[in-house]
Amino acid sequence: MGPEDDNQFLCQNEDERFILLMPVKLFAYKDLLEFSTTIFQQIGCPAEDAALSARVLLSADLRGVDSHGVARLSGYVRLWEAGRANTKPSLKVIHETPSTAVVDGDGGLGLVVAPYSMSIAIEKAKNVGTGWVSVQNSNHFGIAGYHGMMALEHDMIGIAMTNASPLVAPTFSIERLLGTNPICVVIPAGEEPPFVADLATTTAANGKLEILQRKNQMAPEGWIQDKDGRPSNNPHELKSGGALLPLGGDREHGSHKGYALGAVVDIFSAVLSGANYGPWVPPFPAYVPMPDQMPGKGIGHFFGAMRIDAFRPAADFKSHMDNWIRRFRSAKTIDGEEQVLIPGDPERRMEADRKMNGIPLLRPVADDLEYLAGKLGIPFITATSHF
Amino acid sequence: MGPEDDNQFLCQNEDERFILLMPVKLFAYKDLLEFSTTIFQQIGCPAEDAALSARVLLSADLRGVDSHGVARLSGYVRLWEAGRANTKPSLKVIHETPSTAVVDGDGGLGLVVAPYSMSIAIEKAKNVGTGWVSVQNSNHFGIAGYHGMMALEHDMIGIAMTNASPLVAPTFSIERLLGTNPICVVIPAGEEPPFVADLATTTAANGKLEILQRKNQMAPEGWIQDKDGRPSNNPHELKSGGALLPLGGDREHGSHKGYALGAVVDIFSAVLSGANYGPWVPPFPAYVPMPDQMPGKGIGHFFGAMRIDAFRPAADFKSHMDNWIRRFRSAKTIDGEEQVLIPGDPERRMEADRKMNGIPLLRPVADDLEYLAGKLGIPFITATSHF
Repeated sequence: MGPEDDNQFLCQNEDERFILLMPVKLFAYKDLLEFSTTIFQQIGCPAEDAALSARVLLSADLRGVDSHGVARLSGYVRLWEAGRANTKPSLKVIHETPSTAVVDGDGGLGLVVAPYSMSIAIEKAKNVGTGWVSVQNSNHFGIAGYHGMMALEHDMIGIAMTNASPLVAPTFSIERLLGTNPICVVIPAGEEPPFVADLATTTAANGKLEILQRKNQMAPEGWIQDKDGRPSNNPHELKSGGALLPLGGDREHGSHKGYALGAVVDIFSAVLSGANYGPWVPPFPAYVPMPDQMPGKGIGHFFGAMRIDAFRPAADFKSHMDNWIRRFRSAKTIDGEEQVLIPGDPERRMEADRKMNGIPLLRPVADDLEYLAGKLGIPFITATSHF
Repeated sequence: MGPEDDNQFLCQNEDERFILLMPVKLFAYKDLLEFSTTIFQQIGCPAEDAALSARVLLSADLRGVDSHGVARLSGYVRLWEAGRANTKPSLKVIHETPSTAVVDGDGGLGLVVAPYSMSIAIEKAKNVGTGWVSVQNSNHFGIAGYHGMMALEHDMIGIAMTNASPLVAPTFSIERLLGTNPICVVIPAGEEPPFVADLATTTAANGKLEILQRKNQMAPEGWIQDKDGRPSNNPHELKSGGALLPLGGDREHGSHKGYALGAVVDIFSAVLSGANYGPWVPPFPAYVPMPDQMPGKGIGHFFGAMRIDAFRPAADFKSHMDNWIRRFRSAKTIDGEEQVLIPGDPERRMEADRKMNGIPLLRPVADDLEYLAGKLGIPFITATSHF
């Protein structure tokens, strides 16, 4: 059991192809945002934190990363019910230099701890060119992209990463020792939209397995292994002791590289900060017992902000980024493919569509939110349509 | 034609399995180091630069990354002959803040420009916690690992990356727009040896294709595509307009992630610094014409140094790194695999062996060095044995 297993309903799709597999209801962004804000207030978040948490959460739905959006709302509530998330944290910097800080998240929601920590990175970058913040004692922070993109309005490059509970087996291992440990790098451009890379360091995110489970389809080679470390095509393999595989899939295809990248995320997020790392990262689902002999506090994140003009005038940089982006976007494509995409293109298109047309929630997710509303004694919202 | 094509003889093997495919001669490390130093002096490098260049070059041979070692020596000389490498560069910082700098390499050998730039990152980290240096107007810098590992003696995390001439097609592209763009992250430990990740952002380095070419074997799926972007198993495909593939191989296996990582390396190294990027990165082989309408100067690198104690006391960090390393190394393995490796393990073992027993050079590499010695009028060295 891992954190992603808590999300039974909605598929994560890291990029463009959102696949509707079950009946959905369509909700207005504004309605879901207000609803989520109220839920966070009901579990004790101060008004500002509640609004921020809802914004971070909904930014995932808007961008099409549905596994990290409102589908997780009841999971956060269960963490709070289990005493594993502090909705009134006292966030503080416990160590710092002009360009670095360590933040103690006080067991707070990562949805709040992460933007706070990224703001500190940005402030430090204003002062000395770059800022780097490692975070202990936090919880799941939603999508990395939200935090990384905070840098954009300051003409900075933003970096965000987090460790997560272990679902991934390093090369040659049959034990799950790493999370899907995402890396997000956000780079401003000029007339072109920004470059937004936000990627799990695994071949495929767990949400993609869930899609296959619902479709009764087999997984491609290189996504998962069984409990003995043999390649498997069974998308249910994680429930029987199997593991997700690092980006690359197997040794011949470079899985040692995906493993090394996931390891760097783990170490920057947790060994630098004093959080838990490797197999000791606490699980997201509240019903999963905590690991024994945890070496740190909570889960860890790592943030970076680099001021563009700490390297060259921002206008020069942006004009070359535009040139970079246009050159790549206009590359000759393989037959049948429309265009070479720039990281962030698919999510931006999705966001424009969903802001305008609403956010589709699978029926079980909508039902889960309605149940949550009842449990916390607040009115549920009305779908704008369903099909 | 790309930079790796210049290296006809020796196989790059990014990690443990060095495969001898042709007759070899064995040379003492010290002899090759002195010989290379003399060669660099002969082409005009000041004594210190010559010694440094030789050390960087030979560190690749010691670590088993043979494609980036003395096998490239004659390539550097040809760059100098063609007027593409300046052996008496005037290195300078052209822009800086307390935690950042941009270095102009003045067309110098990357073997010299890179350590200079990494030193600046380290100095900045001493002052404000971290240092970040982007470099323009440089040339091939040897192996990233050498530069990243400079951080170790200062109890810092070291980061090194570089762009390289285009051999790699982004996802959906049939054009080669990125180099193999390596990322190196070096993290100190306590009693355990350091964590040293040094990885090309492609499924397989070009040197691995060269091994297959010599063995007349086909390449696995996911390493290369042909000129129309179709999957190919032909290891000679790059000579017919094919391309290396980003880590992940194809879209289903996450090649968009490898593409995004390679793109980040390109942008940090070159768009931040004012070097050439994407398809405009100059080729390593001196006989390959320079690209048209180059938007910057030379090739670009990016370096980072983070002081451990800018985050937490170094002793605490190191003891947790030891714990991290031991837990991973003792993980249960897949049947038939001895141990889960920590990034850097294979290269360290190789280095110990080669320092003791000598560095094996394939006969054509040894012949090439002997020819080079004759051309520059210096004596060649004697192999300690050959077989």
